[in-house]
Amino acid sequence: MARRKPKRIAESTQSWSVLRHPFEPQRIFSEDRVEAIHLAALEVLETLGVKILLPEAVEIFSQNGAKVVEDMVYLDADMVEAAIASAPVSFVLRAPNPARNVPVAPGQLIFTPGGGCPNVTDRIRGRRPGDLSTYTDAVKLMQSFNVIHKLSPAPEPQDIPVHLRHYAMMQTQLGYGDKAITVYGRGRQQVTECFELMQTALGLSDAEFASAPYCSTVINTNSPRMLDRPMAQALIDFGRAGQMCIVTPFCLAGAMAPITVAGALTLQHAEALAAITLNQLTAPGAPVMYGGFGSNVDMKSGAPAFGTPEHIQMSIGSGQLARHIGLPWRSAAGAASNTNDMQATHETVMSLWGCLQANATMVIHSAGWLEGGLTFGFEKFIQDIEALQSIAHLCKPVASDTSAIGLDAIAQVAPGGHFFATDQTMAQYSTAFLPSLNADLSNFGTWSKNGALTAEERATKKWQQVIADFVPPAGAEGRLANIANMVAEFTQAGGAPILD
Amino acid sequence: MARRKPKRIAESTQSWSVLRHPFEPQRIFSEDRVEAIHLAALEVLETLGVKILLPEAVEIFSQNGAKVVEDMVYLDADMVEAAIASAPVSFVLRAPNPARNVPVAPGQLIFTPGGGCPNVTDRIRGRRPGDLSTYTDAVKLMQSFNVIHKLSPAPEPQDIPVHLRHYAMMQTQLGYGDKAITVYGRGRQQVTECFELMQTALGLSDAEFASAPYCSTVINTNSPRMLDRPMAQALIDFGRAGQMCIVTPFCLAGAMAPITVAGALTLQHAEALAAITLNQLTAPGAPVMYGGFGSNVDMKSGAPAFGTPEHIQMSIGSGQLARHIGLPWRSAAGAASNTNDMQATHETVMSLWGCLQANATMVIHSAGWLEGGLTFGFEKFIQDIEALQSIAHLCKPVASDTSAIGLDAIAQVAPGGHFFATDQTMAQYSTAFLPSLNADLSNFGTWSKNGALTAEERATKKWQQVIADFVPPAGAEGRLANIANMVAEFTQAGGAPILD
Repeated sequence: MARRKPKRIAESTQSWSVLRHPFEPQRIFSEDRVEAIHLAALEVLETLGVKILLPEAVEIFSQNGAKVVEDMVYLDADMVEAAIASAPVSFVLRAPNPARNVPVAPGQLIFTPGGGCPNVTDRIRGRRPGDLSTYTDAVKLMQSFNVIHKLSPAPEPQDIPVHLRHYAMMQTQLGYGDKAITVYGRGRQQVTECFELMQTALGLSDAEFASAPYCSTVINTNSPRMLDRPMAQALIDFGRAGQMCIVTPFCLAGAMAPITVAGALTLQHAEALAAITLNQLTAPGAPVMYGGFGSNVDMKSGAPAFGTPEHIQMSIGSGQLARHIGLPWRSAAGAASNTNDMQATHETVMSLWGCLQANATMVIHSAGWLEGGLTFGFEKFIQDIEALQSIAHLCKPVASDTSAIGLDAIAQVAPGGHFFATDQTMAQYSTAFLPSLNADLSNFGTWSKNGALTAEERATKKWQQVIADFVPPAGAEGRLANIANMVAEFTQAGGAPILD
Repeated sequence: MARRKPKRIAESTQSWSVLRHPFEPQRIFSEDRVEAIHLAALEVLETLGVKILLPEAVEIFSQNGAKVVEDMVYLDADMVEAAIASAPVSFVLRAPNPARNVPVAPGQLIFTPGGGCPNVTDRIRGRRPGDLSTYTDAVKLMQSFNVIHKLSPAPEPQDIPVHLRHYAMMQTQLGYGDKAITVYGRGRQQVTECFELMQTALGLSDAEFASAPYCSTVINTNSPRMLDRPMAQALIDFGRAGQMCIVTPFCLAGAMAPITVAGALTLQHAEALAAITLNQLTAPGAPVMYGGFGSNVDMKSGAPAFGTPEHIQMSIGSGQLARHIGLPWRSAAGAASNTNDMQATHETVMSLWGCLQANATMVIHSAGWLEGGLTFGFEKFIQDIEALQSIAHLCKPVASDTSAIGLDAIAQVAPGGHFFATDQTMAQYSTAFLPSLNADLSNFGTWSKNGALTAEERATKKWQQVIADFVPPAGAEGRLANIANMVAEFTQAGGAPILD
């Protein structure tokens, strides 16, 4: 395949960078109240219990001494604290390209794009169910911007039957990307096959694959206090294979969780700890991330809201709980808006800053997420990248040495003059500032003369250009070829069912 | 005048509240580098000097021992440090309604709307020069939302001749609002007349008016290192009258300031200190606010950019410098966008969070500011209020007592159930969450059926409704009547010229 440099994109994307939070984490609770919430969550697990729909998981809890009554499991504090203690504080999520490996540890900042969206939308083709073609386009976008650290499973390629879809999603991620890969926990056979595809694509020995996480999955609890079959099985299977679980109760205050932030966080914490405990009982030391995705609902309609004060408070409170137990953790940005408007950007940027205040290790849904996750938006993706690149830029130290203070430059310019021609400016003008990706900074007259394009319209041109310029990363073609036969065999054998 | 409660607005506005920052200030510099920037700024003032275009101001500096060479003034560190020491750390900005008084002190959070805009735009009437009718509408909007703590002079009523415009602006603020008032520093006669109008409107004795600030003005330096005649005169006149100056170098890194953040802040700090020194030499103890409005320019076009990482860094660095000298200070949000799109909200929300990271005492241009301040946007104003109300909500403590954790509520709901009907939810559902102002949280189908209105379109309905429902606050009519004769006399006498 001819390789050429995607020149036009190179102008507006940042170089790959592992990020660390530039800001100190903030607090909404005093330390004693964080401890109180932690203890309340332990009490929920011990006295109210969690409903576990997978008998194999119930059996694991039971064998390890948990009290079990049919499908209800009651965990004592010692078992939970032991699981917290065995979960690793720090590990590396491997990518097909080792240069894209991502350290997972408190203080790191990892951006992942919108996930889990059944639909897709853009200004050219409209809103429609996701398909393989647009999933491929989305992966090209995720791969093209270095501020995105990991690929996401969205939009869902609904034109591929569910028993074969995981092959297509692996092929798409491996064939068009070289960043860390996501596998859905939709049943043992699918998960196991994805592990085999991953190992084969990368040419890893069994020992190599077992030694580090080469893919991750998100574990959603069924709030309140329930863990369904595919999620429980994934906690077991990913754990045994040494692959990464990202535990995520989705606690909407006032709906599937208490209406108070403290109450919703108590429930979220209990559910996250139950899932981590199952994972660690199965495989002590398996890579697992604590987390939550908490917001509130509109109490008039029951609709989920994002970017609200409660969303931000839930993020900050989650961060306090994560630091209390000492684990890396995920939070999420997100938008409820149905289109690419001021609301959409308000919601995502507000919730993004919530994640920053919270020092979330991984910010999921950080680009392209509309309609509370029902739709992956291409224009929204581009606009959100502008925010993420700005934050990534803020992660760099600000020069403040004598040369940066630059009294010489100040002395060079007479009162009322300008700095365009100082030696300092001339030396730095091409690198000083982060170039904008989607902003139009021209004045009203010029902007009008050029067609008065909105940010949404400009974003269309941008994603089209990114996709037109796209070249698969080095090695992707080979990795895809490595699994061609295996995918054919799996397909011929009838694919793999999903576990309900 | 018949008084009725503006019911529809009451649903979506918060109650009046004096805010304090909910978050700890962040840092971009170590403390020793903050000190280094402070010392570098003092060196700029002592060795490079500041050009002061008003002879009266040069004379004040000279009388107090500054070295003067024609219009260049060189300030030694002792003079500057004495001015910093005499500036008050804390005071109260008075409003016509004492219930709207605003404490000005480090840690407070004051939101003021977009200011200084010559133009106005809305979806009904388009973009056009500001006039008295739309200034009146804007003041009604500023007055209607309690999260706005102070009135702004925008859009500029350009249909009123400049020698009479200050009367109209005072009448509009006093006649439609009861919040703290802004007076432009456009020359001694205009300023003095505005003080007289203010004192007369509120029925204050000379001693009462002199005892506390009843109005404020923004002092922009002419970066680099220059203070023009109207600004220098306002520093003197507001100081002598005990009224409030908000000192604001507008340092765009790479244009009128060095290209480095540290260099631009050094220049900003030097200019702010020069202005504060003039003010305090004139009237030690006069209410004055430190500040800056720093961002960067697009180095390709020279156009100012807002909401960029550099804008955020300039805010955070300014906050560090403000805390270093111990004074309350102003920063600014803002947008360069030409219309109400994703860019517009991105820019304002990003820069708003910069001000929060910086713990800016006063966030100017926090609502309705488009095109880098060239235009006041009514739809933008509404959307920005959504962000400000969210931040105001975050200023409230989050309940975390036993009742908020609410194990009873968690126990009431079976696994997989919902919390809509718990006692806790029923008791709190109408007050638990901040109601959205402009967000549409309905799903895609309902939203489409209802006309697929964008946030911009919804905002039009909202500002129209606010203006339609508007009732002047209690007392405004009387205050306006108090100054009717005085305005007539001033007008008959020929008005007051502006000082160039």
